[in-house]
Amino acid sequence: MSFNTFGQLFRFTSFGESHGPAIGCVVDGCPPRIPLTVEDIQRDLDRRRPGQSRFTTQRQEPDAVKILSGVFTDEATGQQVTTGTPIALLIENVDQRSKDYSDIKDKYRPGHAGYTYDIKYGLHDYRGGGRASARETAARVAAGAVARKVVPGLVVRAALVQMGPHKIDRSRWDWREVDRNPFFCPDAEQAKFFEGYLDGVRKSGSSVGAVIEVVADGVPPGLGAPVYGKLDADIASALMGINAVKGVEIGDGFATAAMSGEDNADEMRKPDPTLGNDGKPVFLSNHAGGILGGISTGQLIVARFAVKPTSSILTPRQTVDSHGNDTEVMTKGRHDPCVGIRAVPIGEAMLACVLADHYLRHRGQVGEPAAWPKPAV
Amino acid sequence: MSFNTFGQLFRFTSFGESHGPAIGCVVDGCPPRIPLTVEDIQRDLDRRRPGQSRFTTQRQEPDAVKILSGVFTDEATGQQVTTGTPIALLIENVDQRSKDYSDIKDKYRPGHAGYTYDIKYGLHDYRGGGRASARETAARVAAGAVARKVVPGLVVRAALVQMGPHKIDRSRWDWREVDRNPFFCPDAEQAKFFEGYLDGVRKSGSSVGAVIEVVADGVPPGLGAPVYGKLDADIASALMGINAVKGVEIGDGFATAAMSGEDNADEMRKPDPTLGNDGKPVFLSNHAGGILGGISTGQLIVARFAVKPTSSILTPRQTVDSHGNDTEVMTKGRHDPCVGIRAVPIGEAMLACVLADHYLRHRGQVGEPAAWPKPAV
Amino acid sequence: MSFNTFGQLFRFTSFGESHGPAIGCVVDGCPPRIPLTVEDIQRDLDRRRPGQSRFTTQRQEPDAVKILSGVFTDEATGQQVTTGTPIALLIENVDQRSKDYSDIKDKYRPGHAGYTYDIKYGLHDYRGGGRASARETAARVAAGAVARKVVPGLVVRAALVQMGPHKIDRSRWDWREVDRNPFFCPDAEQAKFFEGYLDGVRKSGSSVGAVIEVVADGVPPGLGAPVYGKLDADIASALMGINAVKGVEIGDGFATAAMSGEDNADEMRKPDPTLGNDGKPVFLSNHAGGILGGISTGQLIVARFAVKPTSSILTPRQTVDSHGNDTEVMTKGRHDPCVGIRAVPIGEAMLACVLADHYLRHRGQVGEPAAWPKPAV
Amino acid sequence: MSFNTFGQLFRFTSFGESHGPAIGCVVDGCPPRIPLTVEDIQRDLDRRRPGQSRFTTQRQEPDAVKILSGVFTDEATGQQVTTGTPIALLIENVDQRSKDYSDIKDKYRPGHAGYTYDIKYGLHDYRGGGRASARETAARVAAGAVARKVVPGLVVRAALVQMGPHKIDRSRWDWREVDRNPFFCPDAEQAKFFEGYLDGVRKSGSSVGAVIEVVADGVPPGLGAPVYGKLDADIASALMGINAVKGVEIGDGFATAAMSGEDNADEMRKPDPTLGNDGKPVFLSNHAGGILGGISTGQLIVARFAVKPTSSILTPRQTVDSHGNDTEVMTKGRHDPCVGIRAVPIGEAMLACVLADHYLRHRGQVGEPAAWPKPAV
Repeated sequence: MSFNTFGQLFRFTSFGESHGPAIGCVVDGCPPRIPLTVEDIQRDLDRRRPGQSRFTTQRQEPDAVKILSGVFTDEATGQQVTTGTPIALLIENVDQRSKDYSDIKDKYRPGHAGYTYDIKYGLHDYRGGGRASARETAARVAAGAVARKVVPGLVVRAALVQMGPHKIDRSRWDWREVDRNPFFCPDAEQAKFFEGYLDGVRKSGSSVGAVIEVVADGVPPGLGAPVYGKLDADIASALMGINAVKGVEIGDGFATAAMSGEDNADEMRKPDPTLGNDGKPVFLSNHAGGILGGISTGQLIVARFAVKPTSSILTPRQTVDSHGNDTEVMTKGRHDPCVGIRAVPIGEAMLACVLADHYLRHRGQVGEPAAWPKPAV
Repeated sequence: MSFNTFGQLFRFTSFGESHGPAIGCVVDGCPPRIPLTVEDIQRDLDRRRPGQSRFTTQRQEPDAVKILSGVFTDEATGQQVTTGTPIALLIENVDQRSKDYSDIKDKYRPGHAGYTYDIKYGLHDYRGGGRASARETAARVAAGAVARKVVPGLVVRAALVQMGPHKIDRSRWDWREVDRNPFFCPDAEQAKFFEGYLDGVRKSGSSVGAVIEVVADGVPPGLGAPVYGKLDADIASALMGINAVKGVEIGDGFATAAMSGEDNADEMRKPDPTLGNDGKPVFLSNHAGGILGGISTGQLIVARFAVKPTSSILTPRQTVDSHGNDTEVMTKGRHDPCVGIRAVPIGEAMLACVLADHYLRHRGQVGEPAAWPKPAV
Repeated sequence: MSFNTFGQLFRFTSFGESHGPAIGCVVDGCPPRIPLTVEDIQRDLDRRRPGQSRFTTQRQEPDAVKILSGVFTDEATGQQVTTGTPIALLIENVDQRSKDYSDIKDKYRPGHAGYTYDIKYGLHDYRGGGRASARETAARVAAGAVARKVVPGLVVRAALVQMGPHKIDRSRWDWREVDRNPFFCPDAEQAKFFEGYLDGVRKSGSSVGAVIEVVADGVPPGLGAPVYGKLDADIASALMGINAVKGVEIGDGFATAAMSGEDNADEMRKPDPTLGNDGKPVFLSNHAGGILGGISTGQLIVARFAVKPTSSILTPRQTVDSHGNDTEVMTKGRHDPCVGIRAVPIGEAMLACVLADHYLRHRGQVGEPAAWPKPAV
Repeated sequence: MSFNTFGQLFRFTSFGESHGPAIGCVVDGCPPRIPLTVEDIQRDLDRRRPGQSRFTTQRQEPDAVKILSGVFTDEATGQQVTTGTPIALLIENVDQRSKDYSDIKDKYRPGHAGYTYDIKYGLHDYRGGGRASARETAARVAAGAVARKVVPGLVVRAALVQMGPHKIDRSRWDWREVDRNPFFCPDAEQAKFFEGYLDGVRKSGSSVGAVIEVVADGVPPGLGAPVYGKLDADIASALMGINAVKGVEIGDGFATAAMSGEDNADEMRKPDPTLGNDGKPVFLSNHAGGILGGISTGQLIVARFAVKPTSSILTPRQTVDSHGNDTEVMTKGRHDPCVGIRAVPIGEAMLACVLADHYLRHRGQVGEPAAWPKPAV
């Protein structure tokens, strides 16, 4: 069962509400003897942290993580490493503003989870969105930082490729730009445009959506468990489960519907030693996004997800309250005009967790890699 | 763990290869005392069955299902009902054409799972795609037929809304048309066009993709388990896990990225007895596709998925063989020019399974529905 | 997968080492709207807490639990209740004595987990037993305190029925005695004897085993999921998983091997309204311990488990060190001469967790109880 | 969730009732490229098969197994091997005697699962015990035959060590005797005695219990996942889940309660090359039964379980019927006077499945074995 646990062999269980004393997670199933420090985790948390530019919520949370268990000093190396036991990560909530919620606590914000939590559970912690707050995603990022270290050679990166109706120019893609603008945008020129565009959105109290692309490099071929633990199915679940996400695609995604079989085929050529690809075939394209039949091909894994505009807007919307009365609601106070921005490190974390899990699951079932190419019989 | 098991409380485990003696599944966790006959299941299987028009593979499989366990006659009613024990469903393979596979057994079809199965497992049953064959989806449809009966009042339907680059006109949507054309297309006019269009594709030995829309009516509010068993995340996993699917979206999906918060808000009004909606709020739109915060709102659940063109095409493509040599491959023989067509009942089945599972999971954790509206304090 | 997670629908994930900063657990799947306070949990923790008599380890740990998430004030009642989201429970380690471990850190204590952790993981936190310490069981007791509140009317109690070779006299069983002596012993006379007996063991630096009996009252009939989620199988797993446990039995247990079918049969009589048992049959005996075919009968659930003597003893034992050398080891310092004593509240907690889980699982699959007796056809 | 699925990475899902058309199971997660034939499985099934002596039920079932999926011919070797996909195993029921059940179908046999199934599910297939029949255990034995091949070098054996009150003389233990008498008894002399003893039981229409000992040789150290997936906890669950089992113990089991820490310690000596034990320490005893802290030590795994006498006896017992009336019941027809006999191969199968699962789980999390002894720092 998975309520608040993500993953199978590499798995984490998260907890916490936006305005409770703390949030955090317990990472379980991590292999032993992996070097792991607070800094490894803090680095990723700092990228997701709010309040770093005027384009994200102004809530000030240091998001300082503590490792409560699961690490020890390896005497042979003097390094702090994982022990194979659960790694508990704790992040205290600091800036829960003690504001008065009485004016909105009973009103359902259209597009927000308040109504569905109430109808499911009969009550919910409405302060700052409670459990449905994007604050929970800090736990995902922390777990993802551990996951990144599980698959040798794995690099997971993400970038914002569309904000509102405005897409980037993919010919200008430069990964180095991602850390140079407040939007995680790989297109420097478009990032400039986004500044003015999002300022307008922000000042009008509105919000916009976004599309994020996540790319994993160094994924060994063979990961994925057909037919109900397919790698792409688990990626879809991981990304769709991020707050506000409404669509996920792998490789050419929805565009493949309009393609012919000839165009969609990723042709293959024999292993090419000059490409240093470990004796594996060379693919001439990657429409598949690195996954065939639910199993990784060894190419880049490429996925995209769409984030809807946040429901926290200044313009009043019609709604009902929890007592069944018609009313209106508007959201004052701190919020993200484009929650898609902070979804970038979250998408990376979720993809890293899926890959770490499948890496261990594959190793469990199959053990040593199969010989390829096969000897002629 | 989920390798070949789908779901948690309502769950099924499928088995079988395209050219083995049989395929089937074991449905576990089904509530007892639900009327269930072979006909209930056969009806859905017949909709997925190949060879029913010139637009699907000509393999002739009756797909006659047997119930091996899990049902008994309720003496009180004389009806055959479920007993709460595992329901084993068996479908024998009949038309495994004993053709000679020697010309293609070592060649990887670009876009097909042959290479990834080989690299993962070291060998695979190459006859007709083996385990990666669309034939496995018959087991899904059979399980889905049981799932449909688990949630009282649930109706799950699907339709093909795009073939190749050609979308339907949604203003002509008529559910009754879906069963009147070989494409499960709700737009009669476009269905006519598809006949000629797909004939052209078929005769040229090519293939095209499609987009399918799945809609569930009668879903009670409150289903879904935040934050890692969200209803939308599980739907994404279920649909992305169908053969050849490359994208999934819920409600307005990728279009929400371009929307403003004002446009995306599904405003609410107080319960309206004239709408007979059981004392629940009325939503003025459904951009969310029936899910907020991972929990069903009580509206229609709406999802779409993109199916890539099948990799079985007549035009030769460059590839390698399992011994690491360059070669070419083309696929002769029976195949689907648009596998998206038969994906329609499969999509229904998968959505039904997710909903049955979450219906039981919700009942397990929460039991009786919460009182709503809340009494004033 | 279950590494550090126990249960399915009602489940908890524990973390922490004996000498790390904290231990704790995350309880997930708990139904909403259950009143829950820190006191509810602290009460059980205080029973397990070390250092309360001279017969348990002298480590001083207040075991003060904090609830970090998953509770909120129900405005209708003003009570603090569960919300259905994860309940994180944190217990800080206070009395990790900063002693020098250098003399024993490389030596494997015979009967302890040091060697197996090392051979599995390549290293382990040796301070105070690390993850294998009985300290982890505080997390179980905390989770169990929540579990107790899930099944309406459930009462779970346990008692020590044997210490070393000395059994209690069951004719003197009085539940009220259990809280009146430091052994959780229901036989006041034998408890007196145990004082002198265990003092002798303690002073000689030795240790002894024990047998604990756990009894659950108020378990509704029908709990248990045949055939691989049987209630007795899950109880066996829960109790065998407690530190130092080497045997588990249900009802008459191992004694049934010597019985005849006639003697073992629990005869039944028709429902007797004077017994107020809700229209259910009356059983004339309970050799089965309340479980038939893996499903609860509605009678008392009765289980026993054997706890081996702790491996921490003063007499030197032959062993090897982690570098493969022969050596000797003896355990100085704080330890429990009979760890079976503190296993009493732990056994209760584990049984409560199993029952809460099965209560929710049963409700999920079956929903409303079946009508019984059946109407005549 | 586990209703009818056993295991995590190596797992099987069983189905079928005693008098339905067939029983069977789907084995999932099996590593690829393991040689597997029908004979491998049939061999074990034949040992469990009823009707082979006058001491087991006279139902005649050939228990001929069919492999429906998951195997293929490895071209490199010409052998039939596993492919890593689900292995479906089917056993048709042949000797469902079409007898008239009307005289007992509504009467609950004391000690049998009829009442609990009815109270849980509202009905059950009463023919021959339905799902609660020992017939289901054929599926376990079939799955176990696959499991045996997963762990290299593993040998799992079992023997009956007590029947009724009569224990074997362990000094006469000879594994070769186990296959030479109809009781799987390793003590030839006691086996002789059992013939006359059980004939008496059988002729009087009575039944007796038994104790079975299961031993696994060749288990690598390091298997087991503390703290809630401990190897001993999973073995306890596996054995307690066998029909009619009421107690499980590991190593010295319940006897440890009466032991001192000095006696219970399994002392260790440094690796002894003359013992050929791969550089691992030598244990001087095995009170622990091969498991410490939930992790295998590399010694023999030793477990015992108690089987109660079957409830099918000729002497009338008081009971109620499903309509709530007092009545009597006696069981005529075919049954086992000591079901413990056929539990011997079932116990082996369950232990093999647990070990296969933990072997893969360990490999998944930890990968390559840790270096031991550790280098001096």
